[in-house]
Amino acid sequence: MRNVTSDNITDTFLNYFGEDTDPRLKTIMESLAKHLHAFARETNLTHEEWQKGLDVVRQAGKITTPERDEFVLLSDVLGLSSLVDMINSPDKGTSSSVLGPFHISNPPKMEMGADLKGDNEGELVLVTGRVLDTDGKPIAGATLDIWQTAANGLYSSQDPEQDTYSFHALFTTAEDGRYAFTTVKPVVYTVPTDGPVGELLKATGRHPWRPSHLHYIIKAEGFRSLVTEVFPDDDPYLDQDTVFGVRDDLVMHYLPQPAESFPDQGFVLSRKVDQAYLRVDFDLTLTKSVSTA
Amino acid sequence: MRNVTSDNITDTFLNYFGEDTDPRLKTIMESLAKHLHAFARETNLTHEEWQKGLDVVRQAGKITTPERDEFVLLSDVLGLSSLVDMINSPDKGTSSSVLGPFHISNPPKMEMGADLKGDNEGELVLVTGRVLDTDGKPIAGATLDIWQTAANGLYSSQDPEQDTYSFHALFTTAEDGRYAFTTVKPVVYTVPTDGPVGELLKATGRHPWRPSHLHYIIKAEGFRSLVTEVFPDDDPYLDQDTVFGVRDDLVMHYLPQPAESFPDQGFVLSRKVDQAYLRVDFDLTLTKSVSTA
Repeated sequence: MRNVTSDNITDTFLNYFGEDTDPRLKTIMESLAKHLHAFARETNLTHEEWQKGLDVVRQAGKITTPERDEFVLLSDVLGLSSLVDMINSPDKGTSSSVLGPFHISNPPKMEMGADLKGDNEGELVLVTGRVLDTDGKPIAGATLDIWQTAANGLYSSQDPEQDTYSFHALFTTAEDGRYAFTTVKPVVYTVPTDGPVGELLKATGRHPWRPSHLHYIIKAEGFRSLVTEVFPDDDPYLDQDTVFGVRDDLVMHYLPQPAESFPDQGFVLSRKVDQAYLRVDFDLTLTKSVSTA
Repeated sequence: MRNVTSDNITDTFLNYFGEDTDPRLKTIMESLAKHLHAFARETNLTHEEWQKGLDVVRQAGKITTPERDEFVLLSDVLGLSSLVDMINSPDKGTSSSVLGPFHISNPPKMEMGADLKGDNEGELVLVTGRVLDTDGKPIAGATLDIWQTAANGLYSSQDPEQDTYSFHALFTTAEDGRYAFTTVKPVVYTVPTDGPVGELLKATGRHPWRPSHLHYIIKAEGFRSLVTEVFPDDDPYLDQDTVFGVRDDLVMHYLPQPAESFPDQGFVLSRKVDQAYLRVDFDLTLTKSVSTA
């Protein structure tokens, strides 16, 4: 197109694709260009505003490392990450939620009933539940990869005072599909605010807080992997999670328990418990993977 | 919103703005989120595709420097840069076109009629024209900042063989609004293809070529600054500029001239011309700036 105008530039773009373009890539790039162009037209975007947008991504590029990904954070606070989660969630089963940047590879394998708290500060919590299929039957041999903040609101990778694998664990279910471990109650924390995303939150009057949560990745053969989070029902940020991660079925009650009630629950805990504690029960329902469904 | 779903996440995002948010920033972020979310919904974007998109911007971030801005290039090949140009172009006056990454600060001031070719290879061209207002009256004291490729298709900043200011010049018009200089005919070139944008072009079956052009920035007191380009009408890439920069009124004919016809045109040229050459006439019409209109 020789005489490109603001009216025909989108069609001009769409006509540039080569015939051998992968159809799915073409679909994605067409939709991206249509929406990007519509955004610029709708807002009558100025050169200065375009430059400011470029500054955001340039700054994000400068500070992004494998450990600190400002582009993922940008996607998170714009709701894109959660939307992709939801689009790809099966209708049945436990809702998925954002992975976030704090998962680490090769978490330490632990025996069911293990203790993550050790001498660390924080409220003692017993976390129990089952991994189930959509018929409510237990799934044996499911792995639960679990991670959370310490009581200071920091993940181990953010905190030089913590061991690398502090509050990270990998469990495998037995025939009954049950899991159980003791830990500390996770606490609220902020997403990193020292980059352009922090500036954007500030400029739009948004806080950087996330409600407290336990992270899970559950995998089992023949089932779709599930990345999710569990939130306490008394958290002040449930209705305003800055990364849009809360789903109704992921909000659970942490029930206060007297010391003597513990631990006669049909599983062996490694921690000797002689104090009051909280207990949260959270069953995780997996859907069958597409190839075996 | 506690129970965020793919249906309500956009509204949830829109409700997060603080009351003191700058209204223009709010407008832009609202439109951006609406279109970003609609893009993800429309395409049913998968986690893998989301990760591929993140890879593109991460790679762009890694290679972006003040001299090589892959984010601007991404904006260019997606048509966003040209669209912003067109949205912000006044209805009257010469069309604007993309600035591109090769403009340099403080180009050398030259006398009207100067020669940029020197001993450099390439077809000799006489470029002439006038800077006019929308009534067709000459504008005195307008500056023309001009830059172009050498005959090898490289700008001086890309080419260690060229001087820093090679094929860069700044002219100022006199009372008649006229400008004139001799140079070489610019040639076609490709945008940089060694980054993620190059991979994207390849994957979508697009070539990386731009039609040849002379770049201009024209400034005059009381008028809107104009960034534009002039394209020869015989260029093979006029209808498929990879950055969407061509406008009908920017396509000009380079007229072959015999040596003896030169230079009796009412201006003094510094180059003694004793060979056949090309001549292009290009009048630049500026619109009044908003504050004085």
